[in-house]
Amino acid sequence: MPQRSDINRRVVLAQRPKGTPDESTLRMEEVPISEPAEGQMLLRTVWLSLDPYMRGRMNDTKSYAKPVEIGGVMTGQVVAEVMQSSLPGFEAGDMVLAGSGWQDYALSDGTEVVNLGKAPERPSRALGILGMPGYTAYAGLLKIGEPQPGETVVVAAASGPVGATVGQIAKLKGCRAVGVAGGADKCRYVVETLGFDACIDHRAPDFEAQLAAACPNGIDIYFENVGGRVLYGVLPLLNPFARMPVCGIVSWYNSPGLPEGPDMAPALMGTILRMKVKLQGFIIFDSFPRSLYAEFAREMTGWLAEGKVKYREQVVEGLEAAPQALNDLLAGRNFGKMVVKL
Amino acid sequence: MPQRSDINRRVVLAQRPKGTPDESTLRMEEVPISEPAEGQMLLRTVWLSLDPYMRGRMNDTKSYAKPVEIGGVMTGQVVAEVMQSSLPGFEAGDMVLAGSGWQDYALSDGTEVVNLGKAPERPSRALGILGMPGYTAYAGLLKIGEPQPGETVVVAAASGPVGATVGQIAKLKGCRAVGVAGGADKCRYVVETLGFDACIDHRAPDFEAQLAAACPNGIDIYFENVGGRVLYGVLPLLNPFARMPVCGIVSWYNSPGLPEGPDMAPALMGTILRMKVKLQGFIIFDSFPRSLYAEFAREMTGWLAEGKVKYREQVVEGLEAAPQALNDLLAGRNFGKMVVKL
Repeated sequence: MPQRSDINRRVVLAQRPKGTPDESTLRMEEVPISEPAEGQMLLRTVWLSLDPYMRGRMNDTKSYAKPVEIGGVMTGQVVAEVMQSSLPGFEAGDMVLAGSGWQDYALSDGTEVVNLGKAPERPSRALGILGMPGYTAYAGLLKIGEPQPGETVVVAAASGPVGATVGQIAKLKGCRAVGVAGGADKCRYVVETLGFDACIDHRAPDFEAQLAAACPNGIDIYFENVGGRVLYGVLPLLNPFARMPVCGIVSWYNSPGLPEGPDMAPALMGTILRMKVKLQGFIIFDSFPRSLYAEFAREMTGWLAEGKVKYREQVVEGLEAAPQALNDLLAGRNFGKMVVKL
Repeated sequence: MPQRSDINRRVVLAQRPKGTPDESTLRMEEVPISEPAEGQMLLRTVWLSLDPYMRGRMNDTKSYAKPVEIGGVMTGQVVAEVMQSSLPGFEAGDMVLAGSGWQDYALSDGTEVVNLGKAPERPSRALGILGMPGYTAYAGLLKIGEPQPGETVVVAAASGPVGATVGQIAKLKGCRAVGVAGGADKCRYVVETLGFDACIDHRAPDFEAQLAAACPNGIDIYFENVGGRVLYGVLPLLNPFARMPVCGIVSWYNSPGLPEGPDMAPALMGTILRMKVKLQGFIIFDSFPRSLYAEFAREMTGWLAEGKVKYREQVVEGLEAAPQALNDLLAGRNFGKMVVKL
């Protein structure tokens, strides 16, 4: 089902999932394409980003962002083409970065839309290494983690867009980078292509022992994006004054409720206390000054051009494939930054 | 059993406790009083401080400080009188602050000993409001919590030396101070004498609802010293960008292992993430520059003299009463800073 020029397909939240989203969670609808009014533009989605935070928006939980309403279009960042525009600064044929969600077409008044120009090189990178995930890695590691040469940095989902970037920046800063990933292929890529010092398969029965062996000097920074077994394996290895930027807990996103015990919170809090650990949760566009984004964009563009940072995408074809692709992402069945080509 | 001039009584760790220490945990011994060599002084303990961290030193756990060895004298800060000295700067009759532990007499070479002079006013305050507990409250609240006027600060053990000081400094900084304490008497004291805005009894069946009602604008700083039910009641009330200095988790110190589930770590980590919370564990004499101590001592001495900070002690008589008194402290059966008069 390719995009059509006369119909807007959109994916809406049909009901809030308990646990893993299933076929009753999301629904695809076909509606007419709206006409842009004065001061609006019509956008046609070219690339849709899939990111773990989307699972959180399906829940009705107090959070930093409003949940998607029942019947509402799923949230998401896109790269889109301007089809019609009466907005200054945007004309037909421009490519833009926008937050218009899981749909073929959307109207916009230009709020929080970035013009990428007529023919940007690799525009989908604006959804990944040069966008939210890359910036999350950069700001979280450098501003909360404050890596010092010789320190050990551990990050999970190490072949994904955030983890891969954390480890590569850690190496650029003179740290030992230890990744965690699911399976031998990803671990090989993380070490051989991305240049991490080690990568541990979190599915290994002796994962905790392998992690300890890969961190002979303990862990100074744990960049937290998964929670669960990886976090629990990290705790006994944390050094005094360790830092833990917290940007996600993907392994728990599909939990229908709190997991069975034992209660690990005392172990977590006890480690924070005894090892004088700093944890800090952050939401990338809330937690840092706007000026940091420009610094990131300049520095990361340079690193990519010089080949110092490598970046991998997994492209999924067609909006109709997005729901299953998000489930794959939450289960770690992706390999690289997941984007949907519409 | 008063102190004698010919025998040193000392309390040693007989075996590591599982859970709450009992009569097999500590043992009192009588040994000869050692003669000070050249470059040493003989100290006679006058006041022994009892503090929750002592429970941790009974465990054989990787921590910021070495555990007490089996057969070793229990760790503790004391105010002592110099009996004999060949050390420059210390002469017989001086009162000193020292770390000589649970015993009547000790030798010292002066390392980390502070001379309080011949007749200090209320010397036991050096173990409390003007010492480690007061400094813990001051540095943790001001340097990690960074309170702003109008914010809400919550602290447990609010009639104890750390909690009482946290809340009173919070009030001095223009915050709303909400205490948590065990029982109506303590709560009344916290509000009426210490000037907190509210104090909730953690034993109340509807503790969580009462805490929420006392924090109508949410919680900006939770000064963590107890863990357990108080922490779990705080989590849903935390505001975006809340701060959590972590100086103790007393309610868990006597746990023989991890409590039964559910596992609350996902709830804790999820709140840290969504609310962009900063947690930071600290050990007062490791985590802050020495210069801060002088600032604290000057400011706190002023507040006490002006009556802006109030301080309560519970005095226990005799070294032989110390083991039970420590258990009382860990169970919240003290009322104010616990000190043993030898």
